[in-house]
Amino acid sequence: MSEEAKRVAAWAAVDNHAKNNQVLGIGSGSTIVPVVHRLAERVKQENLNIVCIPTSFQARQLILQNGLSLSDLDRHPELDVAIDGADEVDSDLSLIKGGGGCLTQEKIVAGYAKCFVVVADYRKNSKNLGDQWKKGIPIEVIPMAYVPVIRAVTRKFGGVAELRMAVRKAGPVVTDNGNFILDWKFDKVHKWNEVNTAIKMIPGNLSD
Amino acid sequence: MSEEAKRVAAWAAVDNHAKNNQVLGIGSGSTIVPVVHRLAERVKQENLNIVCIPTSFQARQLILQNGLSLSDLDRHPELDVAIDGADEVDSDLSLIKGGGGCLTQEKIVAGYAKCFVVVADYRKNSKNLGDQWKKGIPIEVIPMAYVPVIRAVTRKFGGVAELRMAVRKAGPVVTDNGNFILDWKFDKVHKWNEVNTAIKMIPGNLSD
Repeated sequence: MSEEAKRVAAWAAVDNHAKNNQVLGIGSGSTIVPVVHRLAERVKQENLNIVCIPTSFQARQLILQNGLSLSDLDRHPELDVAIDGADEVDSDLSLIKGGGGCLTQEKIVAGYAKCFVVVADYRKNSKNLGDQWKKGIPIEVIPMAYVPVIRAVTRKFGGVAELRMAVRKAGPVVTDNGNFILDWKFDKVHKWNEVNTAIKMIPGNLSD
Repeated sequence: MSEEAKRVAAWAAVDNHAKNNQVLGIGSGSTIVPVVHRLAERVKQENLNIVCIPTSFQARQLILQNGLSLSDLDRHPELDVAIDGADEVDSDLSLIKGGGGCLTQEKIVAGYAKCFVVVADYRKNSKNLGDQWKKGIPIEVIPMAYVPVIRAVTRKFGGVAELRMAVRKAGPVVTDNGNFILDWKFDKVHKWNEVNTAIKMIPGNLSD
């Protein structure tokens, strides 16, 4: 059932937003797998000229494995559309992203796209952030700064922030950019735009 | 003469600001060499208990080679004083930093210090940024994003931004954090506080 919900959302995103002669950002995470499958199907059937910009190593592999055309922000610094998943979407369309740890590249690619399409089925849909997603807001940090960033975020906004630990290596998760990830479990509803700007000002974070 | 000017500035910084039982940030660049020499001298002579937090590989080596006590932001997330150099200082005390490519860690360490001491002799002193330092403002970027960041900075604020190329390796300089550096040559005097905030909002930059 949840796989079918993902497939329906993915098809809707691709069929409504992918067009010929586009530069397309490809997000990361499990939701993106059916997006790339559907995109590859349409590119082949309709002979579309679409160039794909990945947001992670995973996205790059998906693009290559599905025979799509791979590019990067050096060659295509402006995208028509970026398609990505989200961990949670609130009623203002604020998102939690980064459960899969690829948030920095995802936000960079989305930031240079004219249109950002979020693929999310009903299970990601909340009134307030945190209603569904209990793991907190991911914040990528320069490794040397993870302790002072934890202190700065929690002193300013409350809650608890923890270094995300790896499962198949000892110690913390290391991102595709060589950094660490904090998961910040907030304890109340915030004005997320203001929080986003304030966190960007904390030295050592990379929350683009 | 210029070595003597650096020495005098360095001694003044250490003798006025380094005290017993402090956590001290150690900056990077040629100005910091006499700072560390003087600090080591005083620590030995006065038997001071001072813990040093480096802002780069270079700073770390200087701390170790001079027999000072090395720590990090994990153990000491709050510093009493950070001492660092600058490429230029204007009449409002806005700084250009990062000629030596260590800007991100320098800004992180300074950001968590209660007091930030800039060691700069008369040659760094300007009315407006750019009067003396002609190489532009360094901006550290995630490698994948260097082209769109160049476009975003120059579209918003004019001037020209270039990828800093390495001399003893092919291709660009890679920072201690594994990133690239842009040198943005601006063409007019800006409100630097506003520019600083706006650049932080550009996806892919790390200008802490």
